[in-house]
Amino acid sequence: MANQKISEGDYAILYLDVRRTYMVKVEAGKTFHTHKGYLELDELVGKEFGATVQSSLGIAFTLLKPVLTDYIMKSSRKTQITYPKDTALIVMFSGIGAGSRVVEAGTGTGALTTALAHYVKPDGKVYSCEIREEFQKVAEKNLKRAGLLEFVELKNRDVTAGIEERDVDAVVLDLATPWLVAPHAYEALKPAGIIVSFSPTIDQVVKMTEALRELNFICVETVECLMRAMQVERGKTRPHTLMTGHTGYITCARKALRLERA
Amino acid sequence: MANQKISEGDYAILYLDVRRTYMVKVEAGKTFHTHKGYLELDELVGKEFGATVQSSLGIAFTLLKPVLTDYIMKSSRKTQITYPKDTALIVMFSGIGAGSRVVEAGTGTGALTTALAHYVKPDGKVYSCEIREEFQKVAEKNLKRAGLLEFVELKNRDVTAGIEERDVDAVVLDLATPWLVAPHAYEALKPAGIIVSFSPTIDQVVKMTEALRELNFICVETVECLMRAMQVERGKTRPHTLMTGHTGYITCARKALRLERA
Amino acid sequence: MANQKISEGDYAILYLDVRRTYMVKVEAGKTFHTHKGYLELDELVGKEFGATVQSSLGIAFTLLKPVLTDYIMKSSRKTQITYPKDTALIVMFSGIGAGSRVVEAGTGTGALTTALAHYVKPDGKVYSCEIREEFQKVAEKNLKRAGLLEFVELKNRDVTAGIEERDVDAVVLDLATPWLVAPHAYEALKPAGIIVSFSPTIDQVVKMTEALRELNFICVETVECLMRAMQVERGKTRPHTLMTGHTGYITCARKALRLERA
Amino acid sequence: MANQKISEGDYAILYLDVRRTYMVKVEAGKTFHTHKGYLELDELVGKEFGATVQSSLGIAFTLLKPVLTDYIMKSSRKTQITYPKDTALIVMFSGIGAGSRVVEAGTGTGALTTALAHYVKPDGKVYSCEIREEFQKVAEKNLKRAGLLEFVELKNRDVTAGIEERDVDAVVLDLATPWLVAPHAYEALKPAGIIVSFSPTIDQVVKMTEALRELNFICVETVECLMRAMQVERGKTRPHTLMTGHTGYITCARKALRLERA
Repeated sequence: MANQKISEGDYAILYLDVRRTYMVKVEAGKTFHTHKGYLELDELVGKEFGATVQSSLGIAFTLLKPVLTDYIMKSSRKTQITYPKDTALIVMFSGIGAGSRVVEAGTGTGALTTALAHYVKPDGKVYSCEIREEFQKVAEKNLKRAGLLEFVELKNRDVTAGIEERDVDAVVLDLATPWLVAPHAYEALKPAGIIVSFSPTIDQVVKMTEALRELNFICVETVECLMRAMQVERGKTRPHTLMTGHTGYITCARKALRLERA
Repeated sequence: MANQKISEGDYAILYLDVRRTYMVKVEAGKTFHTHKGYLELDELVGKEFGATVQSSLGIAFTLLKPVLTDYIMKSSRKTQITYPKDTALIVMFSGIGAGSRVVEAGTGTGALTTALAHYVKPDGKVYSCEIREEFQKVAEKNLKRAGLLEFVELKNRDVTAGIEERDVDAVVLDLATPWLVAPHAYEALKPAGIIVSFSPTIDQVVKMTEALRELNFICVETVECLMRAMQVERGKTRPHTLMTGHTGYITCARKALRLERA
Repeated sequence: MANQKISEGDYAILYLDVRRTYMVKVEAGKTFHTHKGYLELDELVGKEFGATVQSSLGIAFTLLKPVLTDYIMKSSRKTQITYPKDTALIVMFSGIGAGSRVVEAGTGTGALTTALAHYVKPDGKVYSCEIREEFQKVAEKNLKRAGLLEFVELKNRDVTAGIEERDVDAVVLDLATPWLVAPHAYEALKPAGIIVSFSPTIDQVVKMTEALRELNFICVETVECLMRAMQVERGKTRPHTLMTGHTGYITCARKALRLERA
Repeated sequence: MANQKISEGDYAILYLDVRRTYMVKVEAGKTFHTHKGYLELDELVGKEFGATVQSSLGIAFTLLKPVLTDYIMKSSRKTQITYPKDTALIVMFSGIGAGSRVVEAGTGTGALTTALAHYVKPDGKVYSCEIREEFQKVAEKNLKRAGLLEFVELKNRDVTAGIEERDVDAVVLDLATPWLVAPHAYEALKPAGIIVSFSPTIDQVVKMTEALRELNFICVETVECLMRAMQVERGKTRPHTLMTGHTGYITCARKALRLERA
């Protein structure tokens, strides 16, 4: 595992409390301002992750090494990002792991791409397609920050027109018309390979499910996931009042080979 | 990626429909009986994953290469297993990936161990502790079947008495009294390392949360996750009637270093 | 309020534990058999509700006076019955109370009819339409048992062909094609009157919503309700594992008058 | 049913769209200002409920006759009010109907009181206790507005010190320490009478459940209810993103008589 002392150029999480955490790049001469005072970032160099530092106002911030969920949650929010709960399920249902080859579309700002890259490293690859060039720039920056850019090939492509890769382990879709990509996904996947699609509306789910069934995908299933946070304190324990009621549905399927004509 | 033709000794999923899938080991001379007829397993050798075969009664079964969720769901159910939804979140919240070193307790029948091993391979390690020897045997078999045994060290140990490893990236707990393990987890974790605990009752969550806060863990958060499957068919689309109402709560935290100096 | 001593002919709930309750009619010469022994029902006459009696095997059963939810839950289950959670919301959203006039369709076995009648008594009326005569018989029996038959007019009618009543306060629908009834409901309702429709599928909800909007209904809203039971015991408190994942969606709207003039 | 023409002194709902509705009292010489222009309220007199009027800016508002849920949602929000979903379940679980006698505590701003009064009229009574006199004033105003004050006796009382009524059908509690009231509720209830308690925290539920079991209440059950609104539009149908994650738990029980010593 990586060295636990902070070096110049590292990213670090500054933790104030459960609701207030900030991701910074430790650079000489930079100052990070918060409403609880400022921190000179080059003073963080050489500190250990897990250590506590004080702002100019004497407020304690704990230094944390960013993990996957931090990179996901701190992605530039130029598009809707899939929540960690959905990302976690998409990754697991896709069946990927170290060495997997995955096609993703669209890239968006790279939140889901970051997760896929994290789990296929060190010897797999994510082929991530996006039609809007401006998003690719953001995604590239986010992947670089997470140290995962080398596991991703960012492609400026319209996947509804076709997928170039073949024999991939999984295809992961987070776009408006997944049913237009389903036939290309069938061609790109290796036999028994897995497709996972994320969609906010029921109508998308129905169209995608129909397309998958027609294409000879099997194990076609759709789920939705609700996550609720708890307020835990002896004598006052209860679920939080606020909750995200809906993000999207996750549809999965596996490629069955078509019966050859004898 | 592995060869897609089935060899003797491979595991395969026989898919009949969404609700009926079977995992078999392809062995010469073995017959697999279902209520839809039998299959001679050595006839599967050389078939491609994704292909369809017929049982003695002419019923089609599709051959699928097992992925992580199959191994998890088909684990011998001698203990409660964490559901894929919980496994997915535990893995993501733990921050682990290829190369991570993780302590797990208890092993149980190895369902969660399988997931952890899958995500730390090819160069990480899961140190999985279990006090009941009979479970270790089952877990060993399940891990071997999933091809992941080499990434796990199964330890017959009572973790409430201490953890031997140091500087691990994560500690993952699925046992009755996680708060008794929390101090040992603090010692075992590297600074800013992550602990994740899964518990069915609120009372366990409260005790664990108190223990974590006292030990100088930060980012202490608890969530529960509800997953609901959809029945998708044009004109009849609706959530399924049956749903698992509760499995357990997931509590996460990160290790902050204690302030030295007086 | 009614006398609390049990008389011959009364209905009573025999409570063994939270999961096992039985509704009986107290009749001379009748014996009620359970797997915990039998009870001679005429021995219940003169007992007070709330009292405990013993079966032939010495097991204690507590006598309870049935309330609305008992009548709903013990209805003959020849059709799907709406759950108490849905019934409660349908009643509240409908705005009805003592004196209201309500059209209901279809009657089914009368579970929802029972609730509506309970809340419009003593001077309101439920006009409950059902096309299948065999169900009306069951509904009549259930309403009689609950003492609510006088507040209901059971009509053997196809409401998709029209509603006879006018100026009703509410129309409550639990049938397969509510959008075919929506125009008739508009005619039957008094201005600003309320329509509530219960449907298991999304497709029904979409069709109904479109019909309502087109007909000049306003306040068109759809909700679904999930109810989860808790297992409450100090040190073991948690939601129950089993839960109903879906019953149906509730769609409500209010009648706005059409603009006259050209 | 009441006359459908608006008279001076009536309350009316002004409906702009699903998210924007306003309750006004129709009084001569009053003007109601919105960001969509103003309405002279005496111009509403003689209009029919369901009719549409125009603001000074030509924006259409539909006039609706307020129903129970309007009065509940428009109550002055000086305290947390129970949501309609909880109110509906509390009412149904309590078993009350026309003629029932109910003790309620605390009154708060009278939202739940309004619902109870609505369902016990025309010949029942709600005895509603509140220790904070300032809330009683608000509750009185809200009940008067809803035309339900005559069915309620507002009592400035600390119910943890005792309940004066006897042989009531139900006791409904929405206060911080329901377990202190449980013994008094037992005394106040008629045999087989029902107690319903609403509490936001698990800890309250556990204490209340223990108290109820000890007091010889039976059928002790706790549920929580989640309501999710749907966005319904062909091609874009989906649950709303925002949702209330938690309001409180509802605990119900019925009074069993204690076994007499022989």
